[in-house]
Amino acid sequence: MKCRKCNKRAVINMRQHKLALCADHFLEWVGLQTQRTIERYKMFTPAQKVLVAVSGGKDSLALWDVLQKLGYQTGGLYIHLGIKSEDDYSQESQRLTENFAHTRNLPLHIYNVENETGSPIDEIAFLNKRGKGKPCAVCGLVKRHTMNQVASQFDYDVLVTGHNLDDEVAVLFGNTLSWEIDYLRRQSPVLKAKPGLLPKAKPFCRFYERETAAYAVLAGIEYIEEECPFSAGSTSIQHKEILNLLEHHRPGAKLAFYVKFLKNKQNLFQNLDQDGDTNDVLYVCPSCGQPTQSEGTCSYCKTIQRTQTLKNK
Amino acid sequence: MKCRKCNKRAVINMRQHKLALCADHFLEWVGLQTQRTIERYKMFTPAQKVLVAVSGGKDSLALWDVLQKLGYQTGGLYIHLGIKSEDDYSQESQRLTENFAHTRNLPLHIYNVENETGSPIDEIAFLNKRGKGKPCAVCGLVKRHTMNQVASQFDYDVLVTGHNLDDEVAVLFGNTLSWEIDYLRRQSPVLKAKPGLLPKAKPFCRFYERETAAYAVLAGIEYIEEECPFSAGSTSIQHKEILNLLEHHRPGAKLAFYVKFLKNKQNLFQNLDQDGDTNDVLYVCPSCGQPTQSEGTCSYCKTIQRTQTLKNK
Repeated sequence: MKCRKCNKRAVINMRQHKLALCADHFLEWVGLQTQRTIERYKMFTPAQKVLVAVSGGKDSLALWDVLQKLGYQTGGLYIHLGIKSEDDYSQESQRLTENFAHTRNLPLHIYNVENETGSPIDEIAFLNKRGKGKPCAVCGLVKRHTMNQVASQFDYDVLVTGHNLDDEVAVLFGNTLSWEIDYLRRQSPVLKAKPGLLPKAKPFCRFYERETAAYAVLAGIEYIEEECPFSAGSTSIQHKEILNLLEHHRPGAKLAFYVKFLKNKQNLFQNLDQDGDTNDVLYVCPSCGQPTQSEGTCSYCKTIQRTQTLKNK
Repeated sequence: MKCRKCNKRAVINMRQHKLALCADHFLEWVGLQTQRTIERYKMFTPAQKVLVAVSGGKDSLALWDVLQKLGYQTGGLYIHLGIKSEDDYSQESQRLTENFAHTRNLPLHIYNVENETGSPIDEIAFLNKRGKGKPCAVCGLVKRHTMNQVASQFDYDVLVTGHNLDDEVAVLFGNTLSWEIDYLRRQSPVLKAKPGLLPKAKPFCRFYERETAAYAVLAGIEYIEEECPFSAGSTSIQHKEILNLLEHHRPGAKLAFYVKFLKNKQNLFQNLDQDGDTNDVLYVCPSCGQPTQSEGTCSYCKTIQRTQTLKNK
């Protein structure tokens, strides 16, 4: 198969776009498409400071690489969760992230959960009896809190994550299967700023995982290939398997499911503004000062306080 | 595994209900659950005349059997589509349906598409260039028209079909994947009467296909096992395969997806009345007098008129 643009040998064939490209034109295409997604969903402008949440995996490092090449002002945030595995997952991810930032001379913020809270992520989950042996729910809570805190502290204007289409579709699919209307209403490639809460964006939301992986490899990015050891057997991985079968039958089915959802969101859900964003009221946590969805101490502070109490018993 | 009710050997284990039953208790359970579904969705009462659309397959014959045993006033409608296969699909289905009605002394209406319109279903589809070699869309159109016509003509009060949970979930899944809001709004186990349009109900909508199949076998019903030869490779069969994988991972997932959809319908869609029914305006077709969704001759009459013109050329 040949590259649509230059007739060299193609390295990737994107059936949903009927588009085969060589390495150089694919790398260029990813940049152009990312720029288009940023503009389409009004994510941010070159005048703004962008904090990229990086895990050391292919998606977030590829995203940081693309944004930097597109000329955006970026910094990275690595949250060391303290997850141990045979290959020392967290330590190795941090090393690769530092290596990436160092060779490109990009600012990187490191936040160590154990240093800051007194416990690594699995201990917080375990002591709070949350997640049936998996710290995923607590991990999400800690990450959301930390990202907003660090971004505010260092005067960033917007927070971006490397979620790809497969991630977004798995979440959408899960929320659709259970018709979780509140979660469905909130799912968006861009979440607007609210008082105390930075805007968030997912510039890779229209790329399939195989595309971000191909980008990382072709751009020569060294990333951690190991998946988080806690992800095995998760519902979202089951859903990804099911969605792969759908995509196999009908190339482009995932992209269509996601894009049509975004298009129809305003017809589907009430109480959305003209950009399709929710008008939910937020409160301020008296303990950390960050916004929270219900009155009183936020879930993050409650969880960390409970962890410290239980640990000192 | 033993029957939950009598400790005899169980013939079926319904994991989503954590319920194993012997043959007698399963047959009883199907009757009770059907009665519960009829009442829950206010489908019809014993005072009403019910027309069962029967294809000769397990679902519709099992439904007719259950309704009759529950004491409802039922008649059957068999629509001979003129589908030929190695085993002469339409002819054999009609024979089994007639046999079922005859042995139970139940009234059966036979409607032969070729006799009434001049062409069997595949010829209508072929001449109208609809469906890319598959007459499924035209078949649905003809069936809907005929069912309402025959039911009105013979003074039935309500029309029922044997759609099971797997059928309903496959349709829901397809419409969700493409976010077809108008189709989603209309999907319901019961459609209320509109001027000229009889109410429709699906009393088997909460039974898995394996349950209706088990009922047909255990109740000694002789039904056509061959699937419609045009169904092979259809999107709805692909969707069923995907949904089976989901159900395999999480028993009860299909039922939850469907039931939660019905529960949330009113929060999801605007312009639904308090029973979750649509308030769409209907017009009257000047040619057949049946209701239609847009002004002028209805799709059925247009299709049949075009078929006759093209055939006489």
